[in-house]
Amino acid sequence: MHSYQPPLEDFNFILHDFLKIEKEDIKGYNELLPEFTKTIFEEAGKLASEVISPSNRDGDEQGCKLENGIVRTPDSFKFAFDKLREGGWLSLDIEEEFGGQNLPLILSTFTNEMFTSANMSLTMYSGLSRGAYSAIFLHGSEKQKQLYLPKLASCEWTGTMNLTEPHCGTDLGLIRTKATPKGNGSYEVSGQKIFISSGDHDLSKNIIHLVLAKTPDALEGVKGISLFVVPKFLVHEDGSLGERNNLSVGKIEKKMGIKGNATCVMNYDGAKGYLVGEENKGLKAMFTMMNEARLGVGMQGLAQAEIAYQAALAYAKDRRQGRAIPGKVEPNEDADPIIVHPDVRRNLMEQKSFIEGARGFIAWAAVLLDKAKRENDKNAEGIASLLIPVIKGYVTDKGFEYTINAQQVFGGHGYIEEWGMSQYARDCRIAMIYEGTNGIQALDLVGRKLATDGGKHMREYLNLIQSFIKEEHSEDFNADFIGPLKKSIEHLQTALMFFMQNGLKNPLSAVSGATDFLHLVGLVSLGFIWSKKAQSAREQLNNSETNREFLEAKILTGSYFMHRQLPETKLRLERVLTGEKQVMSLATDQF
Amino acid sequence: MHSYQPPLEDFNFILHDFLKIEKEDIKGYNELLPEFTKTIFEEAGKLASEVISPSNRDGDEQGCKLENGIVRTPDSFKFAFDKLREGGWLSLDIEEEFGGQNLPLILSTFTNEMFTSANMSLTMYSGLSRGAYSAIFLHGSEKQKQLYLPKLASCEWTGTMNLTEPHCGTDLGLIRTKATPKGNGSYEVSGQKIFISSGDHDLSKNIIHLVLAKTPDALEGVKGISLFVVPKFLVHEDGSLGERNNLSVGKIEKKMGIKGNATCVMNYDGAKGYLVGEENKGLKAMFTMMNEARLGVGMQGLAQAEIAYQAALAYAKDRRQGRAIPGKVEPNEDADPIIVHPDVRRNLMEQKSFIEGARGFIAWAAVLLDKAKRENDKNAEGIASLLIPVIKGYVTDKGFEYTINAQQVFGGHGYIEEWGMSQYARDCRIAMIYEGTNGIQALDLVGRKLATDGGKHMREYLNLIQSFIKEEHSEDFNADFIGPLKKSIEHLQTALMFFMQNGLKNPLSAVSGATDFLHLVGLVSLGFIWSKKAQSAREQLNNSETNREFLEAKILTGSYFMHRQLPETKLRLERVLTGEKQVMSLATDQF
Repeated sequence: MHSYQPPLEDFNFILHDFLKIEKEDIKGYNELLPEFTKTIFEEAGKLASEVISPSNRDGDEQGCKLENGIVRTPDSFKFAFDKLREGGWLSLDIEEEFGGQNLPLILSTFTNEMFTSANMSLTMYSGLSRGAYSAIFLHGSEKQKQLYLPKLASCEWTGTMNLTEPHCGTDLGLIRTKATPKGNGSYEVSGQKIFISSGDHDLSKNIIHLVLAKTPDALEGVKGISLFVVPKFLVHEDGSLGERNNLSVGKIEKKMGIKGNATCVMNYDGAKGYLVGEENKGLKAMFTMMNEARLGVGMQGLAQAEIAYQAALAYAKDRRQGRAIPGKVEPNEDADPIIVHPDVRRNLMEQKSFIEGARGFIAWAAVLLDKAKRENDKNAEGIASLLIPVIKGYVTDKGFEYTINAQQVFGGHGYIEEWGMSQYARDCRIAMIYEGTNGIQALDLVGRKLATDGGKHMREYLNLIQSFIKEEHSEDFNADFIGPLKKSIEHLQTALMFFMQNGLKNPLSAVSGATDFLHLVGLVSLGFIWSKKAQSAREQLNNSETNREFLEAKILTGSYFMHRQLPETKLRLERVLTGEKQVMSLATDQF
Repeated sequence: MHSYQPPLEDFNFILHDFLKIEKEDIKGYNELLPEFTKTIFEEAGKLASEVISPSNRDGDEQGCKLENGIVRTPDSFKFAFDKLREGGWLSLDIEEEFGGQNLPLILSTFTNEMFTSANMSLTMYSGLSRGAYSAIFLHGSEKQKQLYLPKLASCEWTGTMNLTEPHCGTDLGLIRTKATPKGNGSYEVSGQKIFISSGDHDLSKNIIHLVLAKTPDALEGVKGISLFVVPKFLVHEDGSLGERNNLSVGKIEKKMGIKGNATCVMNYDGAKGYLVGEENKGLKAMFTMMNEARLGVGMQGLAQAEIAYQAALAYAKDRRQGRAIPGKVEPNEDADPIIVHPDVRRNLMEQKSFIEGARGFIAWAAVLLDKAKRENDKNAEGIASLLIPVIKGYVTDKGFEYTINAQQVFGGHGYIEEWGMSQYARDCRIAMIYEGTNGIQALDLVGRKLATDGGKHMREYLNLIQSFIKEEHSEDFNADFIGPLKKSIEHLQTALMFFMQNGLKNPLSAVSGATDFLHLVGLVSLGFIWSKKAQSAREQLNNSETNREFLEAKILTGSYFMHRQLPETKLRLERVLTGEKQVMSLATDQF
């Protein structure tokens, strides 16, 4: 099993060379000096590699067990989760009034990446708690906030999100769970919810379930959904725990991966619940926390690709098979390490150029979300909202693909569980599915986000890239970066033109290309990020004698992306331009 | 769990409309009339869906167990394997003198597809036996043939192939297993072999291990490898079983998938073995059976994509979420089936257009191999040998990708094991790795097959496609099929030109593009197959009033491939043309 190494040098490069965050005019950012972020990341990285990473295997091998109605997590999870909690790592970016440190999202994004690389299943227990925190923070009453938030912030209590039912996942309008008002401000919640991540476990003293349900006279469809807080143990007004609520775990699902996280069927049998926000406004409340949640899932795709890449790289340097084509590299050994072989290189370069690009992409989005929240910047919020489905969809699609690539480097050893490569792929797979399948992300992008505010945010996004392209660049930088970027942006514009000309009169023609369009925007975004990163690396190289190999590697890795990955925009465009003709050509019974 | 449905209509279309096999001038082919093949496939299909498919889940859930040195397969495997054996299904294309029916490979290719879709792990027990049969058939002495072949043919005994050792997989020159001659014609074999599929089990009375090892004074590297037959139970001259040989199972590997097949560490501790063929010619012997073995693995990629697609299609027609964009399709229901949604369609069409194209591709290769073997046609053998690494590499890469696509149709239900979608993906994953990783297939194609006989076979392949393009076609057929095919073949020719101009003086520049080139040839091949299939369907439509929906669906599915999948050739070409510049740009310690 590979021992996780935090990518501290890349974090530093992204934050302080590429994004230059300390110069951003965002509340709290002026504190984010290189020495400070370095200290934070070193500490978090140490925890990730020394405490959390060793628990990852247990999660997969032991899974969670339901015994007499109680869910038990794997042996080593409790210790690792306690350490996360004790260090205050789970409330870095939480408001000070509820016990957090109010640090910007950009910081916790990287600490979360490390914890997620180290053990995705474990990190989900706190991740879902964060979702519950946000729901109550944004929509709860003052009393609810005082009662639940400090404990959710510290993860003394954890949280869950209960949306899906057996017959409805994507289409929440079909929800059947009922919430009947009892007159005293409380409701009686009854129904079955499925796929509830962290639904029950032994890592915290209480579990705060956020549940979507319908009141007796609710409107039909999504307009009649309300949000309720339903604690596992009822909470007295002084915050102490009362009796067990009428809810139980039906079963734990057997899954392909993230086995260390208990995915539960939850049965609510007249459980006591309390309305969060207004009746019938439940779905809207859910939407307001979607950006951070989807950014987090996109990050899971990156985090699993990163740990899988680390393991593949170490193996490629260690495993000896065959000889380098130009001649023996290590003549005294029986064979050369497989990293000398071009096809292994290609595979590793694909992973590396994606991972570092995606990390920059996610970091950029985190800065935009910080700007939106801390400076109330609507423009930043608009661009972030446009890009979030791309981050969720593109980064998890590709992140999974690269966990498979990394597994391939190991040959047969990648297929047996001993080396852990299978687990990274199996764990990563869920990120393409939950928090809205990637098909839904594509629909959100094409059907909703493109048109928001009259298409303003896509225009702003394009302007950002166009004005970067128009800056003065050296000839070789033009050839290596600006040229490919320009082409890709033309492809994006052509696709947009097609949507404008056809989408209104025939929505099917736009929606048929939604997934391809999402990938097109993902590619252009990584092309933009890589160009900016390469520019930063070149500036550094001109100004300083240190760290040259690292900076040159950045430029070369970026160049790989621009020349071997980015040209995929043309293919994505061609598919978009086929409209619905090919996609919808068969009658249902012709399949 | 989905119940497997044999794709009989597509088999019939491929054999009798597209390939028109009964008109091929190949020994035994004139018997392959539609009524005959239909009867065979119906019988085999019934066995696959009613007997074999129900055992598939057991394989994944129970796996194989090593107890007191004995390997036990899952409960239902013995019954299913007995039925396969009793029906003579495992020796369809085996020589009559050894108990087979001497039917062409094209026939057993489709029966194997069905059995493999139904249960890949189970089918591997007979598949490996087939490998052992071929090794002895092609290289064994007359006595060895008489002793082993009839029982391997019927699978009364099964076989294994022992190549890999802990420190060597791809690079067999590093083999350490020793074979010391005992003077009496036998050898003492000692060493450890790993990843031995079907290494031990309770499905047959004896297991015939084919083992690569080195004699004491063997040459270094691959030139000093010899092939030995090492039976689990020694065999008396009359064929009856003697004492247990000195070999044992070290352990069963825990794997990502194909858990129903026992992947064993095999320990040979002075086991009695017999030389097959000549000393030091072991690796060459292995190569002679590589074509059929790799075709078989390519077929596994197709077979798993097929069963996953069937399940996804059934689910998409059954599961209701949301409404069709143009308006409710089933207004009396709460929601429409998800097959109405364009992104679900896109996903299904990608799978369908790949699967049916790949099936035609593999069938074509099987005809070429039949022609090579039955008519001693060197030309056919050359083209088949050229295409085999493409079938192995491209069809398993894409086949796996589409099991993931199929899983995605199920949303969260695809991630839990209950629906079986995870198993199809996990089982399929191995096909990209064993029998030479797909990176090795790409090297075989670019580094060996392209240059064989002075490049003759690639020229023949191109000629076949070019002369088809030059035939007279209708305007709409030109637009839908010939146009895209032409473009793709230009991309292929440009790539070949690049290799010719650069490969000799700098082999790295060609090898860096090997995987992309393999996919390029895969795409062109499927584009060719689809064009030919669409042409056949059009002819049929012109000549007959029956089966119109089916035939129209073929043309539309082909059109989908030509317009949305085939354009990927451009991207693959662009990558090839970057040569080694991007792939080899980093120094090892810059990673």
